[in-house]
Amino acid sequence: MPACCKVYGAMMQKKDCRLIYQGDAVLAGLLAKSGSIYSVAEVRSLISGVLGSAEARDPEAWCVLVAPDPSPALVAQLMGLKDQIAHDAAPDPIDGATYRARLASVRTGLVTLGIDGFLVPRADEFQNEYVPAGNERLQWLTGFNGSAGTAVVLGDRAAIFVDGRYTVQVRAEVDGSLFEYRHLVTEPPEEWLATALKPGQRFGYDPWLLTPAQVDKLRAGVAKAGAELVPVASNPLDAAWERRPAAPLGPVRAHELEFSGKSSADKRREIGEALSADKRDATVLTMADSLAWLLNIRGSDVPHTPLALGLAILDKDGQLDLFVDRRKLAPGLESHLGNSVAVRDMAEFGPALDALGGKIVQVDPVTTASWVFDRLDKAGARLVRAADPCKLPKAIKNPVELDGSRRAHRRDAAAMVKFLAWLDAEAPKGGLKEITVSDRLEAFRAEGDRFRDLSFPSISAAGPNAALPHYRSGPATERVLEPGTLYLIDSGAQYLDGTTDITRTVAIGTPTAEMKDRYTRVLKGHIALSMARFPKGTTGGALDVLARLPLWMAGVNFDHGTGHGVGSYLSVHEGPQRIAAFADTQPLIPGMILSNEPGYYKEGHFGIRIENLIVVTRLELPGAEREMSGFETITFCPIDRRPIELSLLSDDEIAWLDAYHAKTREIVLPTLEDPAARAWLEANTTPLRA
Amino acid sequence: MPACCKVYGAMMQKKDCRLIYQGDAVLAGLLAKSGSIYSVAEVRSLISGVLGSAEARDPEAWCVLVAPDPSPALVAQLMGLKDQIAHDAAPDPIDGATYRARLASVRTGLVTLGIDGFLVPRADEFQNEYVPAGNERLQWLTGFNGSAGTAVVLGDRAAIFVDGRYTVQVRAEVDGSLFEYRHLVTEPPEEWLATALKPGQRFGYDPWLLTPAQVDKLRAGVAKAGAELVPVASNPLDAAWERRPAAPLGPVRAHELEFSGKSSADKRREIGEALSADKRDATVLTMADSLAWLLNIRGSDVPHTPLALGLAILDKDGQLDLFVDRRKLAPGLESHLGNSVAVRDMAEFGPALDALGGKIVQVDPVTTASWVFDRLDKAGARLVRAADPCKLPKAIKNPVELDGSRRAHRRDAAAMVKFLAWLDAEAPKGGLKEITVSDRLEAFRAEGDRFRDLSFPSISAAGPNAALPHYRSGPATERVLEPGTLYLIDSGAQYLDGTTDITRTVAIGTPTAEMKDRYTRVLKGHIALSMARFPKGTTGGALDVLARLPLWMAGVNFDHGTGHGVGSYLSVHEGPQRIAAFADTQPLIPGMILSNEPGYYKEGHFGIRIENLIVVTRLELPGAEREMSGFETITFCPIDRRPIELSLLSDDEIAWLDAYHAKTREIVLPTLEDPAARAWLEANTTPLRA
Repeated sequence: MPACCKVYGAMMQKKDCRLIYQGDAVLAGLLAKSGSIYSVAEVRSLISGVLGSAEARDPEAWCVLVAPDPSPALVAQLMGLKDQIAHDAAPDPIDGATYRARLASVRTGLVTLGIDGFLVPRADEFQNEYVPAGNERLQWLTGFNGSAGTAVVLGDRAAIFVDGRYTVQVRAEVDGSLFEYRHLVTEPPEEWLATALKPGQRFGYDPWLLTPAQVDKLRAGVAKAGAELVPVASNPLDAAWERRPAAPLGPVRAHELEFSGKSSADKRREIGEALSADKRDATVLTMADSLAWLLNIRGSDVPHTPLALGLAILDKDGQLDLFVDRRKLAPGLESHLGNSVAVRDMAEFGPALDALGGKIVQVDPVTTASWVFDRLDKAGARLVRAADPCKLPKAIKNPVELDGSRRAHRRDAAAMVKFLAWLDAEAPKGGLKEITVSDRLEAFRAEGDRFRDLSFPSISAAGPNAALPHYRSGPATERVLEPGTLYLIDSGAQYLDGTTDITRTVAIGTPTAEMKDRYTRVLKGHIALSMARFPKGTTGGALDVLARLPLWMAGVNFDHGTGHGVGSYLSVHEGPQRIAAFADTQPLIPGMILSNEPGYYKEGHFGIRIENLIVVTRLELPGAEREMSGFETITFCPIDRRPIELSLLSDDEIAWLDAYHAKTREIVLPTLEDPAARAWLEANTTPLRA
Repeated sequence: MPACCKVYGAMMQKKDCRLIYQGDAVLAGLLAKSGSIYSVAEVRSLISGVLGSAEARDPEAWCVLVAPDPSPALVAQLMGLKDQIAHDAAPDPIDGATYRARLASVRTGLVTLGIDGFLVPRADEFQNEYVPAGNERLQWLTGFNGSAGTAVVLGDRAAIFVDGRYTVQVRAEVDGSLFEYRHLVTEPPEEWLATALKPGQRFGYDPWLLTPAQVDKLRAGVAKAGAELVPVASNPLDAAWERRPAAPLGPVRAHELEFSGKSSADKRREIGEALSADKRDATVLTMADSLAWLLNIRGSDVPHTPLALGLAILDKDGQLDLFVDRRKLAPGLESHLGNSVAVRDMAEFGPALDALGGKIVQVDPVTTASWVFDRLDKAGARLVRAADPCKLPKAIKNPVELDGSRRAHRRDAAAMVKFLAWLDAEAPKGGLKEITVSDRLEAFRAEGDRFRDLSFPSISAAGPNAALPHYRSGPATERVLEPGTLYLIDSGAQYLDGTTDITRTVAIGTPTAEMKDRYTRVLKGHIALSMARFPKGTTGGALDVLARLPLWMAGVNFDHGTGHGVGSYLSVHEGPQRIAAFADTQPLIPGMILSNEPGYYKEGHFGIRIENLIVVTRLELPGAEREMSGFETITFCPIDRRPIELSLLSDDEIAWLDAYHAKTREIVLPTLEDPAARAWLEANTTPLRA
């Protein structure tokens, strides 16, 4: 990240050191001079959307949305105005009464709507992992900051439902006198509602925020109480939420062919042909990462994933209607999209669905809001429920995407090596804290070419904090890296040419025998998966055991998946491929990128995870009788050898690790200039067995 | 098997050397004297049923069905009459015109029924793996002898559908001018029908022979052609089939508590309580092995599995109505069943379903004929589709069943060791043929206590024949065991206290380097699965890869499951547990018995399989943090060490094999008297590494 941006970012956060906005008249003049199509009032509205989008690495980037080639004076005024609007829009400080008042206000809204209760999932209209600020309704209502959860509001009771990861956190963040604490998995909302609702009551939900399957489950619970489930036309939280962030308007740019490897026209033609072959007239696309892939565009509406939120209808002839706020399209984007893509207002989406009456329309029931199903049903469309047709081709990276990912990983490796060298030098001095450490890594990453963002908030976990697989440092929770502990850092970045995700666990001082035993078993699992060869048709679910067996032999395990799919400058969590202990039907196909990240967690003591990204690769084995695949590891970064219990490793495993380190040195050393980092890399890639 | 039976069996087969039946008057007198309730005519009918059942080890056993304590004179006359009836009922010899005539006759039947086509699956009303003679309709119509397949008869065309195992065999057995050959998996009947049927045609099926899901699939295909799918009230093949074997009347006996370990009353009470807890009033049971388990009874209606075909309705209070031909109940069985079990005629089953109108009835959609669903629907029952509630408790063996199985396996091991010793002595002399060899093994088994039957037809496969995993020797196909080949024997037995299933692959002369490589990889897979430890909740599907990985590393695989469930003196193939490469949701639970049988098959050359039975067992590991299980191997028999390529085995694998052989010697040696067998066992259980 360039230094100026860093300084500006800090200014923005402090809110007390603003660029000076010289008034509407000055701005109006500059707008006119630059050929902007917007009035000052329109610019104010646009800025609200920009403020609702993810913080950009380049904070001035959005200015091109106002005028294709803004003058420095215009940029200065736009930045000043944005800062002013941000200041005015800042929510009042939170105090003890805030959430009580919000809950009361929502309850008033329920009365207005004629309903007796309402469901508040953490979701947006696009079923994304990261949601825009204006969709953080659960957080606004309850104060809960976790990444998954649901609240239920009734007239006299309310409850918040979180999973095992958040049972401690929810008690710290949410007022138990307002919300009962419930377990999302063992006491889900639908079961709670089955006893909490009274016969004849009407329970509401926002049909944009639930899939049809979720609605069905909810309806069953509500019905058990003799109550009725009703969709609402407008979300009562939005009415109650003062200064709710606007829908995001992060600039949308072309993702060039040198990175995407295939034109959008070709992609649309192929998907259209597949729809045709299946006798479908059209499909509705609501997943933002599908749109990004299909149209070769990237946006900045949400943090960490370069998504441009929007909706689309793709015809079997490859013609696509893109429903999006056109204000966020960067100059030139419409011509990039071409004639076969019609950009239309979001408001036209409903009528466009109505126009599909009588057509055979494919919709993904797992990722599409029930609102879409209801509307298509009403329009008389013939619905075919099937997976989003972009899902699989997006997951199978083409050679250009794979080359980009390999290059991105080499830059990421250089940052990781500089970081680990720095850490090994600094940690013994004592006093290093989690956030300081992960900020240092972010700074190293930001030095790399084509860096755009972190791919997720870094998990920087010292000592017992690492025992929480999804831990996130905060001022109240962060710990000092102390001797005799393990430090875990799980992090990744978004580069224009690829997405990375890597975890290393580092010995701070001397690890215990137990830590070494567990670390070595995690490493054995990681290596076993890396070395596996498997015939065509094998699922990730079938291979999962390889990463776990060394732990199982000692009677221990880890409670998360072994691997998730990873996108190409897109989502760091991507389907349909996975490596996890579940009934999997998706074969691993050459070109898919996955993580390989077994771990071990001892509550209150320590945590271990070793993660590389791997690519499913076709193998040509002499004598093979089947079409075989294996994994190519694309993450190159030394794996700490200090916590290894060598007697637990087989000859094959030692050979794998030595070869991995040799290759890491070969690849990363030429990219390093700093003598200390070079020396560290050389010292940390020598063979275990010379 | 006692010598007299063997001789008698041979007499029965030759049909030319019969006991002399002295006429109805003599029999009538003997019946009266013995207190039989039957007339001569009734005895003739009963004998038809006996002839339709599986050949009993004790051919006179059925006589107790006529009179509880028949005199030797009565037995002689009954045997004579049975022999006479069998002779008269023997079908005409098959010639070139037979199948053409049968097909024509069925087509005439279609016209009578007003349908344009008919489906002929290989199935009975109970969805069993082995079907009674009178249900071998596919074989009767087409001549096909395989264990799976379907035929379709239309007015002008007919086709037979078989899977990959039978593509060669079907051409040898079925006249291609009568039946087109189709692949059951890649061109299933429903797809063929979608183009073969004409709009408006009516295609028939027997609702007793298909499950609802099968009917739905068929209906979709028929509908594509614009035709209509119709159930028939009576099967047109049965009308066309002259001298069709009667429904089987194999004697049904109590399976005593010393073998079952739990009373039927306790089982019925527990299942009834589970139904109650799930708010169900009753369940319909149609799986004969569920009935056998639930009622602690064993029959002999079909070969190799001691089933008593019948149907049942179990109430939530544990009361059971058993619909069965009561003539086959051995003396004393009704009192064994007790007052809470009502024995009713098969004809009363339909009306009994009608009486469930308004009740909540659980029925297994995977194993129950669609006839049952149709009838319950019509009666107004509220159907809940869920797995047969006996399935899981039957699979989880109790300690008495496990002890019985261990004992049965020790006797089986003695037979196997005698056999392998004999084989090693005889094979070098040359000229040994497959059927001779498997007959010898059967004879050794029959010497064991509590032996009742083989658990399936032995797979005795020399050289290239072993490359067919489901090979069955016949006079035309069997081969001589020749030097430089591998001989594969997959076999098992039914003992009163347990069911066995074991495969060994034996070097005849010197194996090639390729054979040794593959054999060793199969062995590595077998050992890996045996040694695995896994946490509660792990499925067989998750472990399957362990048995395959050593083969995958060389680019090869095997195309069958790694393990199937095994019953307790019941089905040798039993669900719901499996170890196979599919999306599995059934956890392995302590007490489940499975096979562990990886293999390798090189078409036209050789085949390898190594199979032991294993029991899922709770483990107490020091330091374990999870509830862990592992496998106890209960099959003890030397694994041929001659084809092992020692350099491919790890130290752990060698240690496993040496420990296995040491335990085999410890367990089996005390049960052997024959010095040659003892010497062979001692020589073949020495450690690989002394």
